[in-house]
Amino acid sequence: MSDPTFAIDTRQAGIARELYEAVREMPLLSPHGHVDPRLLADDEPFPDPARLLIVPDHYVTRMLLSQGIPPSRLGVPRRDGGPVESDGRTIWRLLADNWHLFRGTPSRLWLEQTFRTVFGVETRLRAETADEVYDAIAAKLAEPSFRPRALFERFGIEVLATTESPTDDLAQHAKLAADGWGGPGGRVISTFRPDNVVDMERPDWRDAIDALGEIAGEDTGTYPGYLDALRSRREAFIAAGTTCTDHGHPTARTLSLTPAEAAALYERGLHGTATAEDAETFRAHMLLEFARMSLDDGLVMQIHPGANRNHNRRLYAEHGLDVGGDIPQATDYVHALRPLLDAYGMDPKLRLVVYTLDEYTFSRELAPLAGGYPALFLGAPWWFLDTPDAMRRFREAVTDAAGFYNTAGFVDDTRAFCSIPVRHDVARRSDAAYLASLVAQDRLPLDEAAETMADLAYHLPKRIFKLDGTKFDGATK
Amino acid sequence: MSDPTFAIDTRQAGIARELYEAVREMPLLSPHGHVDPRLLADDEPFPDPARLLIVPDHYVTRMLLSQGIPPSRLGVPRRDGGPVESDGRTIWRLLADNWHLFRGTPSRLWLEQTFRTVFGVETRLRAETADEVYDAIAAKLAEPSFRPRALFERFGIEVLATTESPTDDLAQHAKLAADGWGGPGGRVISTFRPDNVVDMERPDWRDAIDALGEIAGEDTGTYPGYLDALRSRREAFIAAGTTCTDHGHPTARTLSLTPAEAAALYERGLHGTATAEDAETFRAHMLLEFARMSLDDGLVMQIHPGANRNHNRRLYAEHGLDVGGDIPQATDYVHALRPLLDAYGMDPKLRLVVYTLDEYTFSRELAPLAGGYPALFLGAPWWFLDTPDAMRRFREAVTDAAGFYNTAGFVDDTRAFCSIPVRHDVARRSDAAYLASLVAQDRLPLDEAAETMADLAYHLPKRIFKLDGTKFDGATK
Amino acid sequence: MSDPTFAIDTRQAGIARELYEAVREMPLLSPHGHVDPRLLADDEPFPDPARLLIVPDHYVTRMLLSQGIPPSRLGVPRRDGGPVESDGRTIWRLLADNWHLFRGTPSRLWLEQTFRTVFGVETRLRAETADEVYDAIAAKLAEPSFRPRALFERFGIEVLATTESPTDDLAQHAKLAADGWGGPGGRVISTFRPDNVVDMERPDWRDAIDALGEIAGEDTGTYPGYLDALRSRREAFIAAGTTCTDHGHPTARTLSLTPAEAAALYERGLHGTATAEDAETFRAHMLLEFARMSLDDGLVMQIHPGANRNHNRRLYAEHGLDVGGDIPQATDYVHALRPLLDAYGMDPKLRLVVYTLDEYTFSRELAPLAGGYPALFLGAPWWFLDTPDAMRRFREAVTDAAGFYNTAGFVDDTRAFCSIPVRHDVARRSDAAYLASLVAQDRLPLDEAAETMADLAYHLPKRIFKLDGTKFDGATK
Repeated sequence: MSDPTFAIDTRQAGIARELYEAVREMPLLSPHGHVDPRLLADDEPFPDPARLLIVPDHYVTRMLLSQGIPPSRLGVPRRDGGPVESDGRTIWRLLADNWHLFRGTPSRLWLEQTFRTVFGVETRLRAETADEVYDAIAAKLAEPSFRPRALFERFGIEVLATTESPTDDLAQHAKLAADGWGGPGGRVISTFRPDNVVDMERPDWRDAIDALGEIAGEDTGTYPGYLDALRSRREAFIAAGTTCTDHGHPTARTLSLTPAEAAALYERGLHGTATAEDAETFRAHMLLEFARMSLDDGLVMQIHPGANRNHNRRLYAEHGLDVGGDIPQATDYVHALRPLLDAYGMDPKLRLVVYTLDEYTFSRELAPLAGGYPALFLGAPWWFLDTPDAMRRFREAVTDAAGFYNTAGFVDDTRAFCSIPVRHDVARRSDAAYLASLVAQDRLPLDEAAETMADLAYHLPKRIFKLDGTKFDGATK
Repeated sequence: MSDPTFAIDTRQAGIARELYEAVREMPLLSPHGHVDPRLLADDEPFPDPARLLIVPDHYVTRMLLSQGIPPSRLGVPRRDGGPVESDGRTIWRLLADNWHLFRGTPSRLWLEQTFRTVFGVETRLRAETADEVYDAIAAKLAEPSFRPRALFERFGIEVLATTESPTDDLAQHAKLAADGWGGPGGRVISTFRPDNVVDMERPDWRDAIDALGEIAGEDTGTYPGYLDALRSRREAFIAAGTTCTDHGHPTARTLSLTPAEAAALYERGLHGTATAEDAETFRAHMLLEFARMSLDDGLVMQIHPGANRNHNRRLYAEHGLDVGGDIPQATDYVHALRPLLDAYGMDPKLRLVVYTLDEYTFSRELAPLAGGYPALFLGAPWWFLDTPDAMRRFREAVTDAAGFYNTAGFVDDTRAFCSIPVRHDVARRSDAAYLASLVAQDRLPLDEAAETMADLAYHLPKRIFKLDGTKFDGATK
Repeated sequence: MSDPTFAIDTRQAGIARELYEAVREMPLLSPHGHVDPRLLADDEPFPDPARLLIVPDHYVTRMLLSQGIPPSRLGVPRRDGGPVESDGRTIWRLLADNWHLFRGTPSRLWLEQTFRTVFGVETRLRAETADEVYDAIAAKLAEPSFRPRALFERFGIEVLATTESPTDDLAQHAKLAADGWGGPGGRVISTFRPDNVVDMERPDWRDAIDALGEIAGEDTGTYPGYLDALRSRREAFIAAGTTCTDHGHPTARTLSLTPAEAAALYERGLHGTATAEDAETFRAHMLLEFARMSLDDGLVMQIHPGANRNHNRRLYAEHGLDVGGDIPQATDYVHALRPLLDAYGMDPKLRLVVYTLDEYTFSRELAPLAGGYPALFLGAPWWFLDTPDAMRRFREAVTDAAGFYNTAGFVDDTRAFCSIPVRHDVARRSDAAYLASLVAQDRLPLDEAAETMADLAYHLPKRIFKLDGTKFDGATK
């Protein structure tokens, strides 16, 4: 690789390289993601290369699906337990045969760099080299130094936050804590994500409410009991090291109801008489309720709105959730967030990080909001936007009104453990290229660009997501 | 021209030039456009330069209108048959006097390159050189080698698809076939565009329904007869070489009605009692119906939604359709296309190419959809977006989630015959510049960039629009 | 500063520099802004650096607020007259301590360049140099050559238009005229902005209506009297040198009501029974009414839609209007402007300049509209978009369909007097960089780029905003 940055111009590239080199070895913070904690709790060897790198990566399987290759041929499990391809090598060859589909995509960038930097494989993947690459990776995976915890240390990860529901008993995290890997201030912690007990439209909501009551020892048959159960679980998460919550709603709508109004909605949910509008109203209200809880217990609040879940109904019917069938939708923030911001947006003790799938809100909504409310930060460009070009567009569009210090640094949000270092690396290279463009245009001196670079790569997420040991800081944003 | 590409950086420009040079002489495929087939059927000499290059080009006449020069001074025919400027030289001088208005626009790029490469005129157009340029072009037009068929061959066009309604008798195409220019696998074919028999809001819909019944020999007084007539006309088009349909609706809305529901709407249309909402519902339903027909007969389906037709009412009143009075409007794809995608989106035998006038859907909707459904491809940036800058933005925004192979290559969609080669050339230069940026950033090796370049320029549209002789291929997308 | 342009590539930078150098000393036209005319009427010395450069600049105070620094600590007056920081040096130090927040923002660019070019201060601002910079600027402010009129002349301002309501008695402008600074063709003129007598949702609307009647000597208790009062005030403004109106509505909606319908709405407003929808309808209708008045009296009409005013309610409650609490919202132009364009869009005697806070309308709506209606021009990228990157995106997105000559040149729209030259300078550098990219890509010859550069910098705004002495030109756009 002659040039590690995404700069095109040689003058800019030189500056970018200098900025990047100074941070490339900084520790990684993964304050939000979907790695299964069992992976690190058990520390078992990884399966074959295909099961590690292809089968669980819906970025990869959806692209192959888009060209007519069904997920079952790629080993993606079926909901009905029906047969799917089980031979890793066969799946790998199918990827190699269709490698051209990934030209210009982030998946190609991530996979190639993973092959090279994690597994030391320099051979270019193509149909003819499929077996060679497969075998080289498989051989590495058999070595003890390629077990999850060894890779975690080699990757230079300082903190990794997985994501669990309040109904999760955090057993994996307890095991990690017992091994010296988890607990408060530990290397692996959890993020509190209550969507399954908030969204009445989920088929499993009623069961989740019961499970929540049981695990919290509260009566979730009433709205006050429900809130108590949530508070209780937040405390349990905090005791296990959690510093953040996460909320993945279809929209960013927030709403302030009276307790009586909220209770009435909750009752309708329990009785199965809630409408779709009731469910949306309840979700909107709960975001405000969770903001109140955050002001009490200090958890940083994240909102990931705007996914039209299971847009691809046939894919959902056959393979279930999170296999590439979600599609972004236009998302309003200006009106949707206003009730929450009216209530708590001016309180620097609240820390609210907002993500988007809709880049056509960057300069119009997100940057002016984050640049005008103490509580609000912009999360890194998310899903479908976690790419060199989109990260550049993000910086170009939000820096004008939000600067750098109302953004929260990079968050990988991935379930692909081996891709964590390369995703951070791509973000660092993208930010370096953007900062270099400012330096090249005489809009920022090099020393300040370098300081900003280190802040974006490490210091900002550490502080904003409270990975620095601060339980609660109300002093400044 | 010192540099044929749109790259600014010299390193990138060098790579872009190499990529471009390798494809610049490849044959042109024009799988969708609005050239009058009579032009090639009759092969008469072109009229004067103004009538060839200005009068019919609404990109040019609308820009002049925007600065207060009415279309009648540019020779654009009036609906009432009233007098308009008829002297080509006068019209030409008016263009030359206002040539500065076109600085930075694609019209300038296309016209200048047409002057130079088609007519060999190197003189820069300005008020003082208006006559010189006019005379030079007029002299060329008098030569036999500047007749339509001769230019067609000189342009290197392999296939040109014109666009006709089902009510067209395809007489021009029959004449072309008789001359060895048309018919299945021929050089000039038709695209089946049924808008005038689908859109009940058109004043001529009722007449078109009668004409459809007559030409198809079916009773279009009933909904089943209407569907039979459409199927019959599709077969007639296929017999004449057609491989694609096209659908230009105000929105991308699709809907699955029962036959009884659809028949009821159709009846209301026939009785003149359909509301605007009925008309939209019927259009939405018919897109699903046409997808079903495509699955039966193998025609590739194109959708061109989002034009607010005749926004400029006074222009429409004076000069009619397609003279520059249409304006884009915000277009939803995620929800609008879902009924169609639910029904047939996972079937690789359907081939659906979607275009847009709304670039603010590229990364949020179009790329994730095309990268997630086997049936769906993205058409080239269309109308108002058929420019070097917009084509770059298209690639930068859609490649992340859709790659290159879910896009359909360039489509000129023009009624300006002489601009066909330059439009393709601009697209090739734009794609070369984008691919070169990937190479310059070490995101793609040069050999793969070169292969992709040839695919975008030629192989992809040939395959996707079934210009390769495949009647029906259900094997892969 | 090694390179005054925003070009990155060295070839492009060379061309950009040449284009820029040729216009950098051209006179400044400030055809729309919010400088207090009293400033120039009184010509008193400026207060301390903080009160001059920080306190009134909501770009600066909102960024500091976003990081938890309340406006009262920055000296922003409270509505309740409560205490706020009054020591300029303390405020200045607070800025310097938080200077890193402004990295990459236009505020930093404007302030640094103001320090350097207006006050001759080359010291970089940081916590340690806060006092040094403060003292250096304060020393300059004590000199007679730093009084407002002296700076006005040093800045090279040819015309500055302030903004007044019809209820303003224009006393400051009369004083300026008496001093040879104002009046028709003068250096300081007013823009007619009737929002406070149009928007029934303002708490002070009813009082403003009374004040309008009084100052105009008309009975605003009736709708015809209200229109007469507006016409009368327009004539008074015109007599004082005004060439433009401005209209800042929440949306761009326009509507053509009958006089009776409009009168009925007006009555409801007077009786306090108008709904929010009534108020929106009345605003929409009045835009059409003002277009009619412009056709009569020749005032250029400007529309600034799309601000969600006082989104930050707590900020509004504590500090009032225009202190950084407004947020942009998605804005439709295609449907909203149609009634006005249907009525008068084809009349080149109307001159309508439209601005936007929503860049996601550039290529889809604004450029096609401006490139298709004689009456319509695009205003410069406004508020949140008045930055190098956004100005580049503006040119890249609108030039294709609107060219350069349907845009109106730069408008600073600022209340920060000392930032006027740097804002114009940034716009000139941005346009130079964009034009240079066209030259570098062989899309425009250098001589035409240079001519365009001068038009954008000076000639276009001079003509479009009728600062050239033309009272009325119906000949061409």
